[in-house]
Amino acid sequence: MASVLDELRQALGDDGVSSEPAILDRHSRDATGIAPHRPLAVLRPRSTAEVSAALRICNRHRQPVQPQGGLTGLAGGATPRGGEVVLSLERMRGIEELDPAAATMTVLAGTPLETLQAAASQAGFLLGLDLGARGSCQIGGNLSTNAGGMKVIRYGMAREQVLGLEAVLADGTVVNALNKMLKNNAGYDVKHLFIGSEGTLGIVTRAVLRLHPKPHSSLTALVATASYDQVVRLLRAIQAELGGLSAFEAMWQDYYRFVTGSDPARVPPLPATSPFYVALEFAGNDAEGDPARFEAFLGRALEQGLVTDAVIAQSEREARAIWEIREGVGAWNARPHGLHLDVSLPIASIGAFAERVRTRLQARWPGSLNTFFGHIGDSNLHVSLDMGTGDEDVRHAAEMAVYEVVRDMGGSVSAEHGIGTLKRDYLGFSRSEAVVGLMRTVKAALDPNGILNPGKVL
Amino acid sequence: MASVLDELRQALGDDGVSSEPAILDRHSRDATGIAPHRPLAVLRPRSTAEVSAALRICNRHRQPVQPQGGLTGLAGGATPRGGEVVLSLERMRGIEELDPAAATMTVLAGTPLETLQAAASQAGFLLGLDLGARGSCQIGGNLSTNAGGMKVIRYGMAREQVLGLEAVLADGTVVNALNKMLKNNAGYDVKHLFIGSEGTLGIVTRAVLRLHPKPHSSLTALVATASYDQVVRLLRAIQAELGGLSAFEAMWQDYYRFVTGSDPARVPPLPATSPFYVALEFAGNDAEGDPARFEAFLGRALEQGLVTDAVIAQSEREARAIWEIREGVGAWNARPHGLHLDVSLPIASIGAFAERVRTRLQARWPGSLNTFFGHIGDSNLHVSLDMGTGDEDVRHAAEMAVYEVVRDMGGSVSAEHGIGTLKRDYLGFSRSEAVVGLMRTVKAALDPNGILNPGKVL
Repeated sequence: MASVLDELRQALGDDGVSSEPAILDRHSRDATGIAPHRPLAVLRPRSTAEVSAALRICNRHRQPVQPQGGLTGLAGGATPRGGEVVLSLERMRGIEELDPAAATMTVLAGTPLETLQAAASQAGFLLGLDLGARGSCQIGGNLSTNAGGMKVIRYGMAREQVLGLEAVLADGTVVNALNKMLKNNAGYDVKHLFIGSEGTLGIVTRAVLRLHPKPHSSLTALVATASYDQVVRLLRAIQAELGGLSAFEAMWQDYYRFVTGSDPARVPPLPATSPFYVALEFAGNDAEGDPARFEAFLGRALEQGLVTDAVIAQSEREARAIWEIREGVGAWNARPHGLHLDVSLPIASIGAFAERVRTRLQARWPGSLNTFFGHIGDSNLHVSLDMGTGDEDVRHAAEMAVYEVVRDMGGSVSAEHGIGTLKRDYLGFSRSEAVVGLMRTVKAALDPNGILNPGKVL
Repeated sequence: MASVLDELRQALGDDGVSSEPAILDRHSRDATGIAPHRPLAVLRPRSTAEVSAALRICNRHRQPVQPQGGLTGLAGGATPRGGEVVLSLERMRGIEELDPAAATMTVLAGTPLETLQAAASQAGFLLGLDLGARGSCQIGGNLSTNAGGMKVIRYGMAREQVLGLEAVLADGTVVNALNKMLKNNAGYDVKHLFIGSEGTLGIVTRAVLRLHPKPHSSLTALVATASYDQVVRLLRAIQAELGGLSAFEAMWQDYYRFVTGSDPARVPPLPATSPFYVALEFAGNDAEGDPARFEAFLGRALEQGLVTDAVIAQSEREARAIWEIREGVGAWNARPHGLHLDVSLPIASIGAFAERVRTRLQARWPGSLNTFFGHIGDSNLHVSLDMGTGDEDVRHAAEMAVYEVVRDMGGSVSAEHGIGTLKRDYLGFSRSEAVVGLMRTVKAALDPNGILNPGKVL
């Protein structure tokens, strides 16, 4: 061991390799509630060249490496399992270039997402990626996990924001694919190997991100619908007639009741008697004309029976009240045993899926709290459960009860959180043997000694 | 040899393996003007299982395989080099499902693009992919080459239209990744291996494509600008103020003069005295309000000096007249030695690039015809040359003169046509050694015997 750390100190300098207990502890887990492990050391390279040097040394010594960004992951992908050195990108932060003609931004992997959002905004653009952890997550982690978040229905996943990438392979090879062009068909587009592979195939060190124009209007409404089918019809009607849909969050009655009922002092914007609710946001380019078009659309939807009730937010405050219901943070924070699952399914099946899951859970755990809401336009459902206990076996059984239905209905056990270690046992529920076999082939080809984030994903 | 073909006949049936000279000739080249080669046989499987069986046999015999779609490629990627059996997907055509709730279409690889466009349109959707060869190209080829075309500025490349894919590896393994969800982070997203790799890593057999809502308005204009910088400023201004830009085609004066001057009977919509012209199309969602917004925007652009002249098409006929200039087909068809190059560069550099290329070409070949137009919003420039001769050495020298500038300015030698064989020697102009090395690693891992489209891309 000594010799690896000695070599690493020589390459990165003494302050680039930390063994202080407080620092080791800080890097012993991500945001997942699984057992932490202290790494052997924390490497904090300042440049791509230093990342390359560190990996070359680790690869020669077969030293496992735990890549880490902002430690906000929810699947255990950045939590050491024991025996790793942590490779933290936190010193590699900053925006190298913002090119308004290309509408791109070239950034270092350790830069917090919020810093990038602010810089894009200042230059008159919008970064099409946003998530709750924006203040602490790092763009390198966002790309390595192909983060989703709040803007997917409009701008796509993190992957769709990337034009170019620089990554370092396990053997230290620097793969410079920092393309700024929207079209580049010169051979395989290798950047996709590193997006969403959770640091198991290489370390993202730099990226070229696309920037979008800012919308000029933002309109929020809460509507009630009579059935899940109406929710889907509403989704497609808005997209076809209005365009510019930037949020579409469906809440099942159980969810709406649980959240709005948790604070008796507040009157909910719509009574809690409808089978479904949708919080929706429209962001258009015509500040003057959009409000009337939005209102006219909702009027037609009411007339046609597509929605049974609707309220348009008339102020920032009213809009915030709608989003607070959707976020449901207060209600769930009061539940210490909350279990939050992130799955995806073909959009037409999500209604039937929720019914099957609820029936199954209630048959086995009568009276347990089961609530459903989802980014339906993204095919993404969040299932939140309170089994009334923190017992690991019960939690595991409840997860299994949900994931078995996901498997049977052709869904994915991970919509946006990734696989990490937490969902590794369920990977085969959503991917065929041939697909998993192909993942293993690629892993073996790019990281033959298996030093990068070992035991994660596969 | 006999034994491979015998085994293939046994697996695919006699009519699945053709050795008729007329059929061999038909499959001896794609749309590229390079030397054709007769394949040993043409395989026409009817199903994924037959593709798998055929590849398993070929792999065991180390028999090179030439995958083919609609034979409309422009880089030689589907032209045999000698000794291959052709694997044609032409019998695997049809739409297996159109799911309006998911807004997806599941299709067989051999289906012509135009068939898919029509089916999407009939269901009230729009397929975000369109190219001139729509009637004969096949979706499997479009995806294998990551086709670009006319809708990239609005909907992205072919890659962006794909949610799921089924592909067959060189050893016959069927990789079923037919995902219908917008979010699916269950491990590596293996579909990207097969998109844009020109059939060298696997054979695409099925795909799940995203569908988009149809726009409700379509407005076309031709404008003149004083400089390339104004072209870029106009691009960003339209995107920021109007949204909904669906075409933005910049023409340099030399191009505009060449095309409009070729037919003296026609009066061009704007006089040919301006340094730059842009044909642009706006497709919005507000059929009533869009024309006034479009006109108001162009009025402001004139006032601000962003454009120096503008004409809005008042009819289908007037719009067609503008697109005919941009297509310039008649003018170029009259030139038998036309040489059409497809490159991309960072958007800010394209003006300077065109100047450098023109200066270089005129210094060496004074009086040769050099014209420039591009999908500027996609960072894509088309350089069309007439060197006054069909001599291969001159054509090669002219190509090299252009590609050297592409290399020096950080561009790509292939924006949308791919590498095939035609641009293979120039791959290193646009991709670093490490990137090409990584491509080779992936190729060796997925196709260790090198039977799939040998000699292409790499």
